Amino acid sequence: MTRWAFTIEYDGSAYAGWQRQADVPSVQQTIEEAAAKMLQQPVALTVAGRTDAGVHAKGQVAHADLTLDRAYAGFELAKGINAHLRLHPISIIRAQAVGEDFNARFSAINKLYTYRIIARPQKLSFDHNRAWHVYHPLDVAAMRAGAVHLMGHHDFSTFRDAQCQAKTPLRTLMRLDIEEHMSPHDESQHLAIHVEAKSFLHHQVRNMVGTLALVGQGKWTPEDIKSALAARDRTKGGPTAPACGLYLMRVDYTQ
Amino acid sequence: MTRWAFTIEYDGSAYAGWQRQADVPSVQQTIEEAAAKMLQQPVALTVAGRTDAGVHAKGQVAHADLTLDRAYAGFELAKGINAHLRLHPISIIRAQAVGEDFNARFSAINKLYTYRIIARPQKLSFDHNRAWHVYHPLDVAAMRAGAVHLMGHHDFSTFRDAQCQAKTPLRTLMRLDIEEHMSPHDESQHLAIHVEAKSFLHHQVRNMVGTLALVGQGKWTPEDIKSALAARDRTKGGPTAPACGLYLMRVDYTQ
Repeated sequence: MTRWAFTIEYDGSAYAGWQRQADVPSVQQTIEEAAAKMLQQPVALTVAGRTDAGVHAKGQVAHADLTLDRAYAGFELAKGINAHLRLHPISIIRAQAVGEDFNARFSAINKLYTYRIIARPQKLSFDHNRAWHVYHPLDVAAMRAGAVHLMGHHDFSTFRDAQCQAKTPLRTLMRLDIEEHMSPHDESQHLAIHVEAKSFLHHQVRNMVGTLALVGQGKWTPEDIKSALAARDRTKGGPTAPACGLYLMRVDYTQ
Repeated sequence: MTRWAFTIEYDGSAYAGWQRQADVPSVQQTIEEAAAKMLQQPVALTVAGRTDAGVHAKGQVAHADLTLDRAYAGFELAKGINAHLRLHPISIIRAQAVGEDFNARFSAINKLYTYRIIARPQKLSFDHNRAWHVYHPLDVAAMRAGAVHLMGHHDFSTFRDAQCQAKTPLRTLMRLDIEEHMSPHDESQHLAIHVEAKSFLHHQVRNMVGTLALVGQGKWTPEDIKSALAARDRTKGGPTAPACGLYLMRVDYTQ
């Protein structure tokens, strides 16, 4: 038996989230069934980040213990599973044999999420369900000034979902930067908000983004973020930004 | 009666091309019906470039003569039509009142097409149907050296579809450059081939791209492009690149 780590990309629009559930399609079930079909054995994945319904991934990581009838190269295993994912917007980007002490969830030392916002008056065609669509441009300088207050080690209760099962609201934000570019063809504003930490509270990124958007809209000052954080109270934070803008980009491990 | 010009964006995957046809969904029919519903009158669009099935647009232009019951601002007209395009991957980016001598097709002085290629071993999830997927990286330096021979004024018969109805195979290529970037998350190679001319022969861009790809794969030398062009014979050119990689990005007018 060998433990394998998979790097996985998916468009989350069609799924009720990563986690297997009764009666609704999940990313986990779709991949487990594809792998089981290819390898003729039950496959159980343990994932780094259980993304919510509609959330995307470009670098999700999951591991599984497999008993293979012969030696497989990583690319071969990925290719075989991908053949069974043909009809799904999911792709195994990499498969790698790892030690049995590797755990996709518990060995992770850092995660990068990117949140995409597109501001333009017209409805989206190419990026429908792949970015948060807002109608008016956001003040990025103000958002960056507000974001500074979230950096570092804090009690993030203000940005924590009521359902969050973490033992502590303390988290350390290592990076929060906002990339902006204007698209020449439609004069739209595209934001990519990059956020890194060892781990996040439930909905933390979407709650932080929803609050930063208030600053970008001029409804809040950058300093309002500081007082909201200090309040340690979810009701003092902004709304939860929609799932469709969120991408799990990368999970880092020491090995 | 006022003539209106519309700048239009669409994901061509779901359509049998721009042009209205019996029994299959077209971009033209979808927009004409949406506009007719909003404006309560028949709407007939004249388009700058009749894109083929599966070809996308970020800056298609079409005009129509409309009799409106009151003054409309461009954004208002675009918004109204977009409301009736809610369920379609089509968006009116801009609507502008123009003079009656404006013709979306005949007044065009320049067109920009971009052709996207993604090279990676794994199947595409996010860009499925939105780029040409190849499995191995292409030699971009060689492709650029080959592209030089296509620049300027030539008889492009080698890159002209048999169905082409243009009076002459002479065209003047003002730009053909290849942008490359590597995506860090999956180590894929992304190419964007930008091509500009006043007008193109039928399938000219896709035939040039298919031929340049042979150079990128090392099957042809850059100089083979020169002799293929000189042959003025479609059978001496490379294959037609798939429709899904092609985007009509912009149409320029003097006014």
